[in-house]
Amino acid sequence: MSTRRKFIQSSAIALSIPVSVPIAGFAKNSDGNNNYKKEFLKMGMAGYTFVNYSIEQTIEIMNRVAINNLSVKEFHLPLNSTQEKIDEVLSKFKNGGINVYTVGVIYMRSQADVDRAFDYAKRVGVDMIVGVPTYDLLSYTESKVKEYNIRIAIHNHGPEDKLYPGPKDVYERIHKMDKRVGLCLDIGHAFRAGANLEKVVIDYAPRIFDLHIKDVTAAKADAKAIEVGRGAIDFNALIAVLRKVGYNGSCSIEYEKDMKDVLPGIAESAGYLRGVMS
Amino acid sequence: MSTRRKFIQSSAIALSIPVSVPIAGFAKNSDGNNNYKKEFLKMGMAGYTFVNYSIEQTIEIMNRVAINNLSVKEFHLPLNSTQEKIDEVLSKFKNGGINVYTVGVIYMRSQADVDRAFDYAKRVGVDMIVGVPTYDLLSYTESKVKEYNIRIAIHNHGPEDKLYPGPKDVYERIHKMDKRVGLCLDIGHAFRAGANLEKVVIDYAPRIFDLHIKDVTAAKADAKAIEVGRGAIDFNALIAVLRKVGYNGSCSIEYEKDMKDVLPGIAESAGYLRGVMS
Repeated sequence: MSTRRKFIQSSAIALSIPVSVPIAGFAKNSDGNNNYKKEFLKMGMAGYTFVNYSIEQTIEIMNRVAINNLSVKEFHLPLNSTQEKIDEVLSKFKNGGINVYTVGVIYMRSQADVDRAFDYAKRVGVDMIVGVPTYDLLSYTESKVKEYNIRIAIHNHGPEDKLYPGPKDVYERIHKMDKRVGLCLDIGHAFRAGANLEKVVIDYAPRIFDLHIKDVTAAKADAKAIEVGRGAIDFNALIAVLRKVGYNGSCSIEYEKDMKDVLPGIAESAGYLRGVMS
Repeated sequence: MSTRRKFIQSSAIALSIPVSVPIAGFAKNSDGNNNYKKEFLKMGMAGYTFVNYSIEQTIEIMNRVAINNLSVKEFHLPLNSTQEKIDEVLSKFKNGGINVYTVGVIYMRSQADVDRAFDYAKRVGVDMIVGVPTYDLLSYTESKVKEYNIRIAIHNHGPEDKLYPGPKDVYERIHKMDKRVGLCLDIGHAFRAGANLEKVVIDYAPRIFDLHIKDVTAAKADAKAIEVGRGAIDFNALIAVLRKVGYNGSCSIEYEKDMKDVLPGIAESAGYLRGVMS
């Protein structure tokens, strides 16, 4: 919204018309074809959304909704993949117009798991892992972050999770660590866990590297996934606070409803977010 | 947006917190499940969208995107249908949760066509026809509007149309007629014809009974249909001016792209509009 107001204000001054009158014809300042390059949040998809889909189908769905960034999950690219396999899969995505921007969510329960995750991330060529190390592995993980210069964004899982039910459970353990240790803030899980999303974004902003965007039916532990915009989360308020802190991290829709028929729900969710951001 | 601001302002006064701070938790004032009952525009679908779909498929698609109002087209309910046929089709829609709110677009090229359209509308039980009478039939159509007390919303078709390329071509011919003679303002066709949408809405407001909502790639005659939000039309400005004039007519998405695979595009368009209205 603010970009349009600025556009109108500068044009209004030029034309000497009252600021509140939109420019004739409503023609947006774009070529009219997929002008999402200028959006506030560069949108992506969280790979888990495609647990029931092949790589080819994933590419097709993402192209249909004009979303080009992907957090790739293990079922599309196993952690023990050879470099040849990695290159083959990345090639498929690249030829399909998809940019693999991170890997994960990867669970780490041993030092070997941590080693494997960072080696994998390096060979895939990303600068971030979305991961979940156990508490005792946090220091070791930090050492790998420094060794590889690959960030870790620790993902909160919701009230049923033993490790990181909410973003606070991540933040309080990592906020004094290397600045490349941060959060993947899962909006829906955080909301179900009773987090104050506005406060979380403001307080943890420098440590929020990635967002998993989803909507849920209520601010309750047993709430269900729903199309973005139909649930209980106020995305206008969320986008506003993200703008306020100047959020420039990544952001992925994670669609966990109708998981054998995800396209319409992803399309509606993406449309809704784009409408809110416009 | 304005409903949320009012909600925050009243709550802020109650809680003595600064107006600019959103309520903790971002929980919207709803039950979190399909809260579209409270939307500014009551959304529908223009039947032509489903030219390649059966009644059953149409119901399924509309339920998927939570849109419940339909402007029914002849291929689903022929103009010469018996009352039995009409009741059967309306029953199907009703059992599927769909409200048939109007009929059309119906083309009228003779008095017989006009007679048939009004008889049909009466038997279907709607209070409005979206139609296109030729110029010489406008007076006769007005007489039928009065006889049946059924409104006619004349649909503008775009720059290639011989009769009503733009909303002005309708308005200038009907603005002194019975108040139940009005416009179905097709946003995309009007935009392609170079209309100033804001001025059209403000100037013709009392005569605008229905909207066909769509996006197009440019303000040019040869522009193509595209998912709402991806094109050149500024829907924030459109929604703002509709609110400004207190628009309380009906509104249907008419999706004319990928017409053999309409669901994802309808979902994205509906999501985008809902995001803009939020």
